[in-house]
Amino acid sequence: MKNKFNKSNQSSNPNLRIPGPVPIPEEILEIVGGQMINHRGPKYAKMLDRMTENLKSVFFTKNDAYFITASGTGAMESAIANTIEKNDNVLSIIIGVFGDRFAEIAESYGANVTRLEFDLGTAADLEKVKSSIKSIKNLRAVIFTHNESSTGVTNKLKDICEIIHNESDALILVDAVSSAGGIPIYVDKWGIDVVATASQKSWAAPPGISMLTVSKKAWKRSKKISTPKYYFDFQQYEDYLQMGQPPFTPALSVMYALDFSLKKIISEGMDEVFKRHSDIADYTRKKTIEFKLEILPNLDVASNTVTAIKLPENIDGVKFLSEVKNKFNVILGGGQKTLTGKIFRIGHMGWVDKKNIYEALNASNEIIKKMSL
Amino acid sequence: MKNKFNKSNQSSNPNLRIPGPVPIPEEILEIVGGQMINHRGPKYAKMLDRMTENLKSVFFTKNDAYFITASGTGAMESAIANTIEKNDNVLSIIIGVFGDRFAEIAESYGANVTRLEFDLGTAADLEKVKSSIKSIKNLRAVIFTHNESSTGVTNKLKDICEIIHNESDALILVDAVSSAGGIPIYVDKWGIDVVATASQKSWAAPPGISMLTVSKKAWKRSKKISTPKYYFDFQQYEDYLQMGQPPFTPALSVMYALDFSLKKIISEGMDEVFKRHSDIADYTRKKTIEFKLEILPNLDVASNTVTAIKLPENIDGVKFLSEVKNKFNVILGGGQKTLTGKIFRIGHMGWVDKKNIYEALNASNEIIKKMSL
Repeated sequence: MKNKFNKSNQSSNPNLRIPGPVPIPEEILEIVGGQMINHRGPKYAKMLDRMTENLKSVFFTKNDAYFITASGTGAMESAIANTIEKNDNVLSIIIGVFGDRFAEIAESYGANVTRLEFDLGTAADLEKVKSSIKSIKNLRAVIFTHNESSTGVTNKLKDICEIIHNESDALILVDAVSSAGGIPIYVDKWGIDVVATASQKSWAAPPGISMLTVSKKAWKRSKKISTPKYYFDFQQYEDYLQMGQPPFTPALSVMYALDFSLKKIISEGMDEVFKRHSDIADYTRKKTIEFKLEILPNLDVASNTVTAIKLPENIDGVKFLSEVKNKFNVILGGGQKTLTGKIFRIGHMGWVDKKNIYEALNASNEIIKKMSL
Repeated sequence: MKNKFNKSNQSSNPNLRIPGPVPIPEEILEIVGGQMINHRGPKYAKMLDRMTENLKSVFFTKNDAYFITASGTGAMESAIANTIEKNDNVLSIIIGVFGDRFAEIAESYGANVTRLEFDLGTAADLEKVKSSIKSIKNLRAVIFTHNESSTGVTNKLKDICEIIHNESDALILVDAVSSAGGIPIYVDKWGIDVVATASQKSWAAPPGISMLTVSKKAWKRSKKISTPKYYFDFQQYEDYLQMGQPPFTPALSVMYALDFSLKKIISEGMDEVFKRHSDIADYTRKKTIEFKLEILPNLDVASNTVTAIKLPENIDGVKFLSEVKNKFNVILGGGQKTLTGKIFRIGHMGWVDKKNIYEALNASNEIIKKMSL
């Protein structure tokens, strides 16, 4: 099974190591190429029902769960549009590009957003989160990224949720796009109101489907606000789910793949899935250090789905990425925004072979050596 | 070429004749199953550039054109969210379910919507459109469906646009989800501000990508309003297009297929594409009449992408659909909302074989005969 599942990496395709879309196992690609079905027929209804139950199991939740045809940002916007109204007080914990995006979405909806920003490469400081929450009156929601793929840092989700619950009545909206299905998230135990993710990350399906879970508290809030929305309206998804249907024609090819991944993940068992990601991340970090390369974050907050590595100061980061591609057929993630040219990133979400990680690190090391001459 | 292109219909798959998603030719399905690439790399940039140019050619326009990962409704919402503000006066011409949906979207954004509704199975009456436009002061936009797939009716798009231009300064926002790529739309010549469509219709790609074109006038309006939006914000797509990138991770598998379809359509030539759809529609109508079945709309407004056919009054429409499926492996579209059980629909978008149309009509006729006994 394992070999078949990693087959895509052994072909002449590049070793795609960006933090999503991830390379898709041949077995899943075949499913992606399946013929269309009637999305209002019994076959789809059965698939949707199974996928919904499996998604809830992945998140250890009894909350509602929905699939929206959109990128992960669509699910993040859905979280905001259904719970936030103009002038609502929102705390946005930002440790990188995607935390910033979440704040931007809330701002575009007219929320009164307090931005609590931390240095790139660090996780949110819990004491500062606590005092920020205490300082904001009528705090409607706290929004943040679980796993910041732009810096390879994982926030202490459980601890942050605990602080929010202790200090406020705020909704907890979590961008788990690059963590879900790879790093533990206990939605009910930790009391998360909306968690958003997307198909092209740890699920190893193509991009095109975003997913979210919705708590009773989020539902209650959604009934009280008049924020304009239609496509991202939770109620649309709920109403149609009762009929075993999607409200709008879904990206069927991606749903087929995601259905397969969800089944595979559930049958593997969540503890095994988390261990698989933790093992490959440990391997990546260990080899990075052996190559005498420097990981951006401290190891205690380093992500299990993506590793961010510093480039020596004398290296032209753009040239570095293209050399790694041209000489070794490895596609790395670059740095984003202010980290452009300063770091590179290696994704290890989904079903990843050590060989591919070694190849990516070795290629990086060779090019750095060459460029340092 | 033709046979290969229709191969998908000759397998054991059902004869899927709903008005989208349409059956996908094997040649395109293989492309759908392609491996992931870096959506921020040069390969994607080249593809996006080519697709954008081809999409403009399909619509005979120099306007901007964008691809959004969403169903067609997402592009319709984008048209509204970027041009309509709360309390704007909007005229919504409604001839079926999708016209009603467009009105609902505008209403959810707080627009002051005048609903001009026509009997199901008819097209918009031009005189009534004219007097409605005249009666509304400060008319911001006219929104309507080009081809109403719920009733198999095509509105007189050119004439409606002419009336709007003569009588007002309103924006023209057109839902062309089920017409574009099959029925002529001259965006520049007819002065359409936003036209929205989706990948699973005449393009014969899987669902997951919606498309739109945006006029200078629509852009000008978008700069003046503060309607909340993020994922559907035109500006996001424009900013990233300048870098050869999508703002958010796109449904790559669907983009691959759509790229192929667009190339194929352009090389076929638009007149040929329109003739292909008109020919298969003529065939469908001729055979329907030969089977002594009654087409819902008058022939002068009957759609070239989907044919709606009346069910005899004594027939249980739900049972009819399942019998056609069970006995003949043909999946028809049913009636929607108030037409449920009263009509059935046969889609003929994309590359369709007469054989499949005949099979669908023959199956329908056999079951109607059997159920009438």
